Amino acid sequence: MVSGNEVLRGRVRDANGPALADDLERRGVAVTGIMQVPDRFNLLVEALRAPIAAGAALVIVTGGLGPTHDDLTMAAVAEAAGVRLVVDPAARAMVEERTRGRGPNRRDDANLLDKQGAIPEGALVLTPAGTAPGAVLATATAVLVALPGPPWERAEVWERALASPPVAAVLARTSSLPERTLRITAVPESRFADALLRAPAPARARVEVGVCARDGDLEVTMRGPEGEMDALHGALTREIGPAIYTDDGRSLEEVVAAGLVARGARLALAESCTGGIIAAGLTELAGASRWFAGGVVAYEDAVKRDVLGVPEDVLVGEGAVSEATAGAMAVGARAALNVDWGLSVTGIAGPGGGRQDKPVGLVYLGCATPDGRVVVARHQFGGDRGRVRARARVAALHLLRRVLDD
Amino acid sequence: MVSGNEVLRGRVRDANGPALADDLERRGVAVTGIMQVPDRFNLLVEALRAPIAAGAALVIVTGGLGPTHDDLTMAAVAEAAGVRLVVDPAARAMVEERTRGRGPNRRDDANLLDKQGAIPEGALVLTPAGTAPGAVLATATAVLVALPGPPWERAEVWERALASPPVAAVLARTSSLPERTLRITAVPESRFADALLRAPAPARARVEVGVCARDGDLEVTMRGPEGEMDALHGALTREIGPAIYTDDGRSLEEVVAAGLVARGARLALAESCTGGIIAAGLTELAGASRWFAGGVVAYEDAVKRDVLGVPEDVLVGEGAVSEATAGAMAVGARAALNVDWGLSVTGIAGPGGGRQDKPVGLVYLGCATPDGRVVVARHQFGGDRGRVRARARVAALHLLRRVLDD
Repeated sequence: MVSGNEVLRGRVRDANGPALADDLERRGVAVTGIMQVPDRFNLLVEALRAPIAAGAALVIVTGGLGPTHDDLTMAAVAEAAGVRLVVDPAARAMVEERTRGRGPNRRDDANLLDKQGAIPEGALVLTPAGTAPGAVLATATAVLVALPGPPWERAEVWERALASPPVAAVLARTSSLPERTLRITAVPESRFADALLRAPAPARARVEVGVCARDGDLEVTMRGPEGEMDALHGALTREIGPAIYTDDGRSLEEVVAAGLVARGARLALAESCTGGIIAAGLTELAGASRWFAGGVVAYEDAVKRDVLGVPEDVLVGEGAVSEATAGAMAVGARAALNVDWGLSVTGIAGPGGGRQDKPVGLVYLGCATPDGRVVVARHQFGGDRGRVRARARVAALHLLRRVLDD
Repeated sequence: MVSGNEVLRGRVRDANGPALADDLERRGVAVTGIMQVPDRFNLLVEALRAPIAAGAALVIVTGGLGPTHDDLTMAAVAEAAGVRLVVDPAARAMVEERTRGRGPNRRDDANLLDKQGAIPEGALVLTPAGTAPGAVLATATAVLVALPGPPWERAEVWERALASPPVAAVLARTSSLPERTLRITAVPESRFADALLRAPAPARARVEVGVCARDGDLEVTMRGPEGEMDALHGALTREIGPAIYTDDGRSLEEVVAAGLVARGARLALAESCTGGIIAAGLTELAGASRWFAGGVVAYEDAVKRDVLGVPEDVLVGEGAVSEATAGAMAVGARAALNVDWGLSVTGIAGPGGGRQDKPVGLVYLGCATPDGRVVVARHQFGGDRGRVRARARVAALHLLRRVLDD
């Protein structure tokens, strides 16, 4: 369970719920749901009581451990478990130590320390990563865990919760089936459904298959006995084999990075309509500097000309969104950054800027290789600005992946 | 409610729940929660029944309307409402029309059309945006709405649901209080909590205040009568006025964009450790080309030297992560892209690359102005790679905002 108006209304992405669910599923714990709840006491208590009543062995709540009036999690956990909220001297001392010297000493500091030092009676205190302690409370049927909201603090305090006896006891009772993840490109969901129907019936019955369509790709998660997974995997390989670009859970960025590393290659980007999202995604990977030199966000046509060296007559004659410009951008990025591979994107993300012959969603991609080849692709994407940019990102990485594989 | 293993485990960010919750709250509907549920029939039905039993007037489920075996939403809605699932000829025809020509005609097509054309008996069909129709079903106490999962389809089909009589009737019964959003920089949550305590008690009692800490900023949402909101807002302005950088709901990117537009200025970026995330965020705004020329992702030191013109002796003598390099990058971006403003980031995002004198989290920012000034700032951020990059993004935009305001 995730508390907080900011998460509920999308000001902050809920990174905690999915990360914890993924971690628990990997440990063999079946997750029955994630819930985001507003900062209202009664709704928080109700959201804690519902899974306890439904027989959940573990209920985790993140967020709402801070000093402000709308941080209600510890009080809600106490209420849901039917115990008192008490100021724990050890927890209070941890908060005091970690907030010392932050901001002026004011009359309300003692109140704020009492607030962040309060935990449900009988709970174990988890040492803070930032300033807020967490807590583990074992009730008759369920273990309740309260973790801080900032994802890096949650990750650290969750490790401590895992080591606590009540949580360890829950995990010791689970048994885990192996899991396999395939990523597939350019296959419609209906085509995949059809391919799946050709797998042997026993395999289909015993393997749980999840399908997720995202930005032009499908991600398929299988969980079941190894033999049946092999049968299902084999059937899919016969039907749509070339479209399966990874079966070991790596992301598209990781596959591309491995392809570059294998060739000892370095990449430069030239992004127009994607405006930096390809570079941002690649540099999420630690150690990207081994294979990624950098890029040019050539949003303005003058940047395409002056920094990337796209000829003025190409920009004027063919236009900034054209096969010729995409090719010249890829070559220009490679030259400007002095590396061996270049990848480019130019297109019309919208909502404005479309014309009859060049509508919103038209995107050209270019890939320049060390042997002087320039491979260009044209796409027409539907949807809004965000979707056109997201699909262009994925399509560009696939173009590079295919050319690297050649 | 959001269905789908992919959302549950974080492979896909749940964009639908928060967007719908925000839209409903703006229309005066109090949202009691968002839940992500795995693709298991019994859990889906349970997740629909719980809010109906708790008295919810409106229950919306997104996702699970596709052709694969794990798309179970329509069947779960029917089960939760106690009606049959029936193939609706109009819905089936919509699917057929929209999937025609996609992929080969195979023996299973009729089954797939029947699957996507099935809705709960008595439901209104919502015309698809992609291939999957939605549905609106009025029960004795609640209105159930099923929407497709891809966010752009969900947005379009939700507009149709809003126009349907059952949903319109729910909205007509609500009454809305006004809302105000403040964004605040460089104020710890505990300092904000203290400032809030200085507001008049009646205002504190009648205004619901939500506080969200994110990447160094606080976002504060107030909802209540205008007079009391003015009183609260006034108290906060007296206590921490200079830190409030927007009170009209605009994002940091929008504030920076407005500052550039007001000066008729154009911006160029030079990003090292942020790797393009500042450019990606700015170009999310439609019409960014009016004030944003582009940028250089200078991940490799040679790019800082060759493309941005950072002198070799600065890179060697002071290092790539230094005040001098940050300043030279900002000046270099401005010169290379031939605009009047430059903004730069260079730092150590980690996990590797830190040293005793230059630890992970050390970030220098530079801002070059048209009158030849170069303003440089130094930060030491905590947390992991993602957090260092996110905080550097926000800090860089604030540096530009302050210099633009001077």
